[in-house]
Amino acid sequence: MSTEVADNTSDTESPATYKVIGTRPVRHDGADKVTGKAVYTDDLHVPNMVFGAFVRSPHAHARIVSIDTSEAEKMPGVLATCTSADLPDPWDKVDNLGEGCVNYAHLSGNVLARKKALYKGHAVAAVAATDSYLAQEAARRIKVEYEPLPATMSVQDAMKEDAPLLHDELITHTLGEEPARPSNIASHIQFEKGNIDEGFAAADVVIEREFKTATVHQGYIEPHVSVALWNEDGRLKIWTATQGSFVVRQQMAELLKMPVSQITIVPCEIGGGFGGKISVYEQPVAAVLSRKCGRPVKIMMQRDEVFEATGPTPASFMRVKLGATKDGRLTAGNAWLAFDAGAFPGGVIGPGAMCVFSCYDLPHATVDGFDVVLNKPKTQAYRAPGSTHVAFATECVIDELAERLEIDPIEFRLNNAAKEGTRRVDGPVYPRVGLVECLQAIQNSDHWKSPLTGPNRGRGVACGFWFNCGLKSSVTANVNADGTVTLIEGSTDIGGTRTSIAMQLAETLGITAEDVIPQVVDTDSVGFTDVTGGSRTTFATGLAAHEAALDIQEQMVEQAAKIWECSQDEVTVVNGVYQGNGKSLPFKELAVEADKVGSPIVGRGAVDPQGSTNAFAVNLVDVEVDPETGKVTILRFTVCQDAGKAIHPSYVEGQMQGGSAQGIGWALNEEYFYGDDGHMRNASFLDYRMPTCYDLPMIDTIIVEVPNPDHPYGVRGVGEVPIVPPPPAIANAIYRATGVRFFELPMSPPTVWNAIKGQTTGD
Amino acid sequence: MSTEVADNTSDTESPATYKVIGTRPVRHDGADKVTGKAVYTDDLHVPNMVFGAFVRSPHAHARIVSIDTSEAEKMPGVLATCTSADLPDPWDKVDNLGEGCVNYAHLSGNVLARKKALYKGHAVAAVAATDSYLAQEAARRIKVEYEPLPATMSVQDAMKEDAPLLHDELITHTLGEEPARPSNIASHIQFEKGNIDEGFAAADVVIEREFKTATVHQGYIEPHVSVALWNEDGRLKIWTATQGSFVVRQQMAELLKMPVSQITIVPCEIGGGFGGKISVYEQPVAAVLSRKCGRPVKIMMQRDEVFEATGPTPASFMRVKLGATKDGRLTAGNAWLAFDAGAFPGGVIGPGAMCVFSCYDLPHATVDGFDVVLNKPKTQAYRAPGSTHVAFATECVIDELAERLEIDPIEFRLNNAAKEGTRRVDGPVYPRVGLVECLQAIQNSDHWKSPLTGPNRGRGVACGFWFNCGLKSSVTANVNADGTVTLIEGSTDIGGTRTSIAMQLAETLGITAEDVIPQVVDTDSVGFTDVTGGSRTTFATGLAAHEAALDIQEQMVEQAAKIWECSQDEVTVVNGVYQGNGKSLPFKELAVEADKVGSPIVGRGAVDPQGSTNAFAVNLVDVEVDPETGKVTILRFTVCQDAGKAIHPSYVEGQMQGGSAQGIGWALNEEYFYGDDGHMRNASFLDYRMPTCYDLPMIDTIIVEVPNPDHPYGVRGVGEVPIVPPPPAIANAIYRATGVRFFELPMSPPTVWNAIKGQTTGD
Repeated sequence: MSTEVADNTSDTESPATYKVIGTRPVRHDGADKVTGKAVYTDDLHVPNMVFGAFVRSPHAHARIVSIDTSEAEKMPGVLATCTSADLPDPWDKVDNLGEGCVNYAHLSGNVLARKKALYKGHAVAAVAATDSYLAQEAARRIKVEYEPLPATMSVQDAMKEDAPLLHDELITHTLGEEPARPSNIASHIQFEKGNIDEGFAAADVVIEREFKTATVHQGYIEPHVSVALWNEDGRLKIWTATQGSFVVRQQMAELLKMPVSQITIVPCEIGGGFGGKISVYEQPVAAVLSRKCGRPVKIMMQRDEVFEATGPTPASFMRVKLGATKDGRLTAGNAWLAFDAGAFPGGVIGPGAMCVFSCYDLPHATVDGFDVVLNKPKTQAYRAPGSTHVAFATECVIDELAERLEIDPIEFRLNNAAKEGTRRVDGPVYPRVGLVECLQAIQNSDHWKSPLTGPNRGRGVACGFWFNCGLKSSVTANVNADGTVTLIEGSTDIGGTRTSIAMQLAETLGITAEDVIPQVVDTDSVGFTDVTGGSRTTFATGLAAHEAALDIQEQMVEQAAKIWECSQDEVTVVNGVYQGNGKSLPFKELAVEADKVGSPIVGRGAVDPQGSTNAFAVNLVDVEVDPETGKVTILRFTVCQDAGKAIHPSYVEGQMQGGSAQGIGWALNEEYFYGDDGHMRNASFLDYRMPTCYDLPMIDTIIVEVPNPDHPYGVRGVGEVPIVPPPPAIANAIYRATGVRFFELPMSPPTVWNAIKGQTTGD
Repeated sequence: MSTEVADNTSDTESPATYKVIGTRPVRHDGADKVTGKAVYTDDLHVPNMVFGAFVRSPHAHARIVSIDTSEAEKMPGVLATCTSADLPDPWDKVDNLGEGCVNYAHLSGNVLARKKALYKGHAVAAVAATDSYLAQEAARRIKVEYEPLPATMSVQDAMKEDAPLLHDELITHTLGEEPARPSNIASHIQFEKGNIDEGFAAADVVIEREFKTATVHQGYIEPHVSVALWNEDGRLKIWTATQGSFVVRQQMAELLKMPVSQITIVPCEIGGGFGGKISVYEQPVAAVLSRKCGRPVKIMMQRDEVFEATGPTPASFMRVKLGATKDGRLTAGNAWLAFDAGAFPGGVIGPGAMCVFSCYDLPHATVDGFDVVLNKPKTQAYRAPGSTHVAFATECVIDELAERLEIDPIEFRLNNAAKEGTRRVDGPVYPRVGLVECLQAIQNSDHWKSPLTGPNRGRGVACGFWFNCGLKSSVTANVNADGTVTLIEGSTDIGGTRTSIAMQLAETLGITAEDVIPQVVDTDSVGFTDVTGGSRTTFATGLAAHEAALDIQEQMVEQAAKIWECSQDEVTVVNGVYQGNGKSLPFKELAVEADKVGSPIVGRGAVDPQGSTNAFAVNLVDVEVDPETGKVTILRFTVCQDAGKAIHPSYVEGQMQGGSAQGIGWALNEEYFYGDDGHMRNASFLDYRMPTCYDLPMIDTIIVEVPNPDHPYGVRGVGEVPIVPPPPAIANAIYRATGVRFFELPMSPPTVWNAIKGQTTGD
């Protein structure tokens, strides 16, 4: 792996020198992970624990006529069964929209089907028994009578006037329109900037294309698993694999109609999430079974349940039209986007619509976005949700425009790149951002400067954007008698954030990363902390850690003044060294002294940063297409990304490489194959084709650092944006290799082979 | 149970009216405890866990010639063995005294015997195996060759010049004396006040008596149990039943020569401690076995191991001499106290010597205290350690003096009671204290006013003192979105302190006790917090909770000002209701609003109160002695105690009743019976006679509240002092019933019967 860290701090800023930030210490949870000692939810054995299993719909769409649990309940060792009747009525409030726009009535209906099963695999009932095999057998003995209904499986079909309706109550609300008749269109959002007609009128070249993307799954290695214990005093405790313990607490409180404070969520180690471990699935069911049988209940999904009944990313159907002048200035853009929400409203069309033109300074643009329900599992976030879809559309059209205008694709992008002051189509005006710097870093890279030669080979480039968000985070931190500091966080650690947050605490205090002992605790043991998602954790929880460090520093100054018999004003702190009254001690030594004379030192930090921190990434990719098979081989892949500041460059690179690998999966192989019966045909890792190390070259990374002005160390967050550019970068590369433009994902061997063949034979 | 809460606030103070303090909410951990869901250490099943067992000395004193573990190690399923050779050399520092005067070299030698076994049951080796029975069998196959040595089993014998020596290196240091030859006297402490000769010369009556007390055990129902996991990265985690997680962390760090920050202690629920679960026993051994076998190791003691190899309270030999004038003024006191330290120095002679005259305003006094090692288990604290011993001596002599002077025993005590301004023999001068108020409350009680009639009956009275301490405590507290508050503590909860601390947080914030969710967490998740002991927890950790509440209140004011668009100065808080800019909201409602607009609210409190809070208790007891059997029946028992302020009166009463019950056990039945071989003959709950409900009347409680000036709510702490007065109160009652004075504990049926018989027959 070749790694370049570009120095992109501007002339007006002298690059800060850090002692901890920018170094690569061993992660705090490293030994636990490599020795198998890290405790995942399935490792738990809670005293008296029993096991739950689901009954799931075999139909993509069916009315539930009756559920008979009696035979299962007669089995020795079966302790409880449950159906949606055991969950509180979710429709008691007309507008049951919770925070973060989760509709809890729909969430409840997804957890256990009410009246209708809306997709193959939709949970209909569950059972708890003394062992997991018995629970599975008991689930088979629960008799569900169904009345099958016609299903609708694609966005285009579901939007038709005569499509089978999933929900009677869904009335599309469009700004300024009269409520329409019930349909599968759950919402229609629109953005407008400038005057689109003027914009296209000013263009010399206009290109419009249609794009489709497939349903893909996050593919985390750990299935969903939880243990629930509902106590006799009404308190509920859940151990679970989640990206957000407080988010799960909130969802559980809404679904079970309990105050949040009666619920404790214990986040165990997590084997991947990528957006798919935010919504609850098995947790409320385990809770209800526990309430009914009085014992802790563990439910772990099987892999096919994960594919069929959790939250993949939407399939999509998109039209993007862009116009530009001969000298390479974009004048206007129009996007029409329809995203598959799955069986319940609330897909990722919102961010998709916001991101479609976010890399460019478009004077005139309109965006229409549709959230469409159909008989597939409820879709969820997947790493920069929605942005990967729209980037595929926009970046392919951009590439085609550049080609038509005979402008270098990077120069064309640089000409139009969003920068400080650019207003996005959806409203916000960018503060300082790093897209230009990323494009320039790619231009300056060895990869760009090395010509690609040989038959069937091509090079592609593409950009990607993701907002990154702020949200709430809390930490506390305690100074030990040996001068080390424990750090208590609510952010579940998926990608090494224990370390990236600890490093910021360490930097502020002037100690080493190893002198911080970070720990992720349960929801009763730390202040509210939003989900680990939105690339926010290192940014926002890091900000909270910085604040806690300043709180500690203030108390240390107080103790130093006491020890050195001077006023607090006389104590100075430089790089963690405290000085006063002619004396001087580094943090750790002062802490040892302070421990002898005063109260324990406890720091706290809590933040709620607003807005987005704006991440950009650019990919450069070389491919070779096998004309015999249509197989695309990635020859060389470079990802450049603006990290703001890379706290731990290895983990930033890891995120860049991991996101790129997933984007390559979207580009080349991953998709849900559905039969006519609405059954997924490839619900296993043998048949659902994710990239392996055999499919990938070492992915080269270039970290650009354009500091985020809203963070003391300039952090932007890095987790999501690298998944965005790979599909269009690869499509553009395949075009250069084959002369064929691709408008559908994945560009799998049969698709590519057929297209090449079609081209050759003139089809 | 009749309970009176005496109002003893002085005229100058208007009694504060509290909303939460003084009420009796259901304890937060109540449901868990009564439904069996509370997790004790033995409930834990850590993945891959194996089990440890000890090899213990069958000799009271023996040189260890050799230890052969080979046969045990050959057994399939046996994973590791260990001996003291596996612990770091504890003698690497000449003066290896740690904080709290723990000598870590001695502690190490107690954990696993080095060179010599010093008492029957002394741990000599240990073994880990895949199941606990296998571990026990393997322990039996470890061959230890001993060279038995003569043992010394009583304080008087051990102090003799020709006594067998336990430790070659022990040289008694007495102030002003030349170091003597090695002996079993580990230390000699002296206190002096005034001029003892003058004092006795001024007395009209002088009485001097000798007293003996037996070894008694705290008798907690849960044996010592721990699970240790020593990670490959050098971090050590221990789940254990302890009174002080940070104290265990410190001991482990010293014994294993690791920084404290590499060790995490997880305190599980605890089934009683009473001072006996502060020192480590099985924890370092489980840790070493885990390091050697790479798996988590659980060790649980058997009951006989708990009796024979943990830390009972000392046996003692005491002489107390007091003089008084005819008009009932004490003029002088002299005490000579020798306490059994057990096999290693560091018994509780220090506090014993400090407490012997602490109830009285003695103008002239001397105290000599001796810490004596002998071949019994190392003694430890047991509820007001040392004070119960010395109160037996002093209060019996006081009673005899009052009788001789023909003064009512309560009046005599009132005449001489310690009060604000009294200087104790060991130095400190009392601030406001409540002994006089307690004596007066007893005088005003129905019990005192009800005459006792009938043959073989008698009434006794006695006082008791305990310092209570401060020490360090830390908490954090987080405001939930529903306006409740989570409270994170490091004080292990033995007697309901989750609730008594939560109530103080609630009172300060103006919310209910139920709106606080308290939790005891591990040493990585909260700031340093000293042991749950010294009656300090409700006092000191309560103080920290009060501070955290004020920290939260300040942030709430900040948010209120933001919401109401006014300055923070304009916001007032009265009884938890916030007002400003013409608006008003109670805490909970304001918290809900604040959650919508600002950062999470995180409070912290950390304290280190100095000095003692001075608890006094007085007992009034009526007994009937069966002349046929010597059995003493408690007819009526009243305990009056100054709580300062009773946060949760039910738990205060519970402490008063529990302490009294234990004191009654000391008085009447409990003792270690030793054979000539130094073996304890009654090391089981069948044979070691603790009082049961059949032995006890309902114990009446009178809570006196003389507020502690050093706590915002006047709390003094209540856990320990009620164990102190029962033995002398009962001895004085038996005297009234039989005409015989008793000078030895326990006053068991054979002892009483023999004494009565002796009196009758003129022996």
